[in-house]
Amino acid sequence: MFTSFEDLCSAITPTDKKLLVTAQKHLDNLTKPVGSLGRLEEFAAKLSTIYHGEFPLNIDPALHILAAADHGVFVEGVAQNPQEVTHLMILNILQGGAAISVLSKQNHMDILLLDAGHKGTCPEYPNARKINSLEMSGNIAKEDAMSLALCEELILAGANAVVDGVKKGYKIFSIGEMGIGNTTPATALFSELFDLDPVEITGPGAGLSKERIVHKAKVIAQAIERHKKAHGKASVLQILASLGGFEIATLCGVVLGASAMKCPVLIDGFISTSAYAVAFCMEKSVQDYAFLSHASAEPGYQKIIQCLGQKPMLDLSMRLGEGTGASLALQLLRSAKVIYNEMATFKDANIETDTYLTK
Amino acid sequence: MFTSFEDLCSAITPTDKKLLVTAQKHLDNLTKPVGSLGRLEEFAAKLSTIYHGEFPLNIDPALHILAAADHGVFVEGVAQNPQEVTHLMILNILQGGAAISVLSKQNHMDILLLDAGHKGTCPEYPNARKINSLEMSGNIAKEDAMSLALCEELILAGANAVVDGVKKGYKIFSIGEMGIGNTTPATALFSELFDLDPVEITGPGAGLSKERIVHKAKVIAQAIERHKKAHGKASVLQILASLGGFEIATLCGVVLGASAMKCPVLIDGFISTSAYAVAFCMEKSVQDYAFLSHASAEPGYQKIIQCLGQKPMLDLSMRLGEGTGASLALQLLRSAKVIYNEMATFKDANIETDTYLTK
Repeated sequence: MFTSFEDLCSAITPTDKKLLVTAQKHLDNLTKPVGSLGRLEEFAAKLSTIYHGEFPLNIDPALHILAAADHGVFVEGVAQNPQEVTHLMILNILQGGAAISVLSKQNHMDILLLDAGHKGTCPEYPNARKINSLEMSGNIAKEDAMSLALCEELILAGANAVVDGVKKGYKIFSIGEMGIGNTTPATALFSELFDLDPVEITGPGAGLSKERIVHKAKVIAQAIERHKKAHGKASVLQILASLGGFEIATLCGVVLGASAMKCPVLIDGFISTSAYAVAFCMEKSVQDYAFLSHASAEPGYQKIIQCLGQKPMLDLSMRLGEGTGASLALQLLRSAKVIYNEMATFKDANIETDTYLTK
Repeated sequence: MFTSFEDLCSAITPTDKKLLVTAQKHLDNLTKPVGSLGRLEEFAAKLSTIYHGEFPLNIDPALHILAAADHGVFVEGVAQNPQEVTHLMILNILQGGAAISVLSKQNHMDILLLDAGHKGTCPEYPNARKINSLEMSGNIAKEDAMSLALCEELILAGANAVVDGVKKGYKIFSIGEMGIGNTTPATALFSELFDLDPVEITGPGAGLSKERIVHKAKVIAQAIERHKKAHGKASVLQILASLGGFEIATLCGVVLGASAMKCPVLIDGFISTSAYAVAFCMEKSVQDYAFLSHASAEPGYQKIIQCLGQKPMLDLSMRLGEGTGASLALQLLRSAKVIYNEMATFKDANIETDTYLTK
């Protein structure tokens, strides 16, 4: 178990890049034109370095950690839907009716739901756990989302959920979220972390009209101004506590925890990517363990992935969250795995490599 | 069984577009913001119309039909690899060592390999079938790839493989290919069908150098000139016989057959897409049954999909063929299926729809 934020961060080390070369050499020796499996090869090589060259690769079983929370900034009119939908969707997810419920079953991942603080009782399900007793974060337009102490606590809860998961045998993790209004703190975080103009990167979330997007961008700008006034040049942890949300802090902890435990972690869409971006700004090496699963249609996304230096795996115009993109991407990693483990080499297939299938 | 090309084509009818509206209404009633599952919703609605509104949707089991052949145009120096690689890869595919062998297992699809005419004996495997006794097609730079009669025969063999498959219970089909040199006839077909300049759309295939791409484009231009001189304004069937290849004709038959049997068919990359393009130019309604699985990096691809009016599902920089892209896309269709079949409606989840999650 990690007991402090500092311990957690110092447990994260980069992967051994020499193993990437070894993995690519193996891939180049399989019966296909060099590089012709494109990003599947990139994924396989990255998985191989994460698991420190282990052969055969094994990425199962998979645990999806979904954090849910409510947001004080909701009162500013930044969301399309009533706040009680967070609670109703938590129930729906656990009862098996939500998109992530059916996709996680189809794509063979277990769900752990972390109630990071929402308006409502955490339903009693064996795979649901309450980690915070507050009803919602502070309204970031007017106050910090949470105290530094609570922020650390949520990060550790996320990280230790991974530690628990590893003990239970899980080999790969993914993150997803539910929280009405949470594109607002996510956008505020991207804006502050990467110095991006809120007006340029604020989008419709679950479906705001153009007028309301303008209003939302103003609320975000107000939050950032308040933050700068209160904290000046702040630490990344302080930025998260000031502008984030409970589920975002928790998922940032999952990313840090997975990296510290040397496990791959699949990042879902816009909000999950904000949690990843925070972790990335805390410890760059999380990039060695993370896979961006699905592109977001929010207008800031292209700039954001430039800052993160990674390309998403899928772009199916999805904008649901919950981990739906991650669940699809997991199957691509499994496909990358079998390529790496099971394909014949040129020697197996009696094909002379000096004439065949070179780049 | 289809006994003539005309019978086959006349069995293809468009899907009932009213069912698309019904399917979208169902999707809009599921617990998610309207449209937020993006292309998964598009796939689910399309599957629903193909299966004529059947509920729940069921797309399994899946049969992958892989056609292999050799090409007379090989002697013009258009390919990087020796021609015997076609035979060695047929063996490798059947023995389980090729990319498609491991991906089809991982992604739960059976393989039927059709030897459409190659230099070598068809290996004796229960899932391999010889459908043509010639060693390779004619050199399209100098002569027709095949006679009209053989072209029809191969189309019918492909279509009847689907009829057989449906009898055995298969609900969805996919196509893939193996054939050293086959980006040349594929590019020639695209060029002639859609009036595209060979110089603009000719690419490296499995890995040609820049100089050799220029040479390949010249060979393709020569083939097209020869074709125009020999056949003038020709039927699509004649274009296929003149500029195509045995595996391309066979796969064109699979696309026509799947459409005639009202089954979805997943199209792999560049060469499979050329087979689809031929089928599309014969009978536009095949578009109602087909899914383009993976984008191609060949330079003509973007223009080609504009002509076809469809967007591919995946873009992972793969350029291997065999059906590797289709195998990954199949899992996306399964995910679309469970969304459609298993998600809770707003009523199930006690969420009021007049305030919630509208667009």
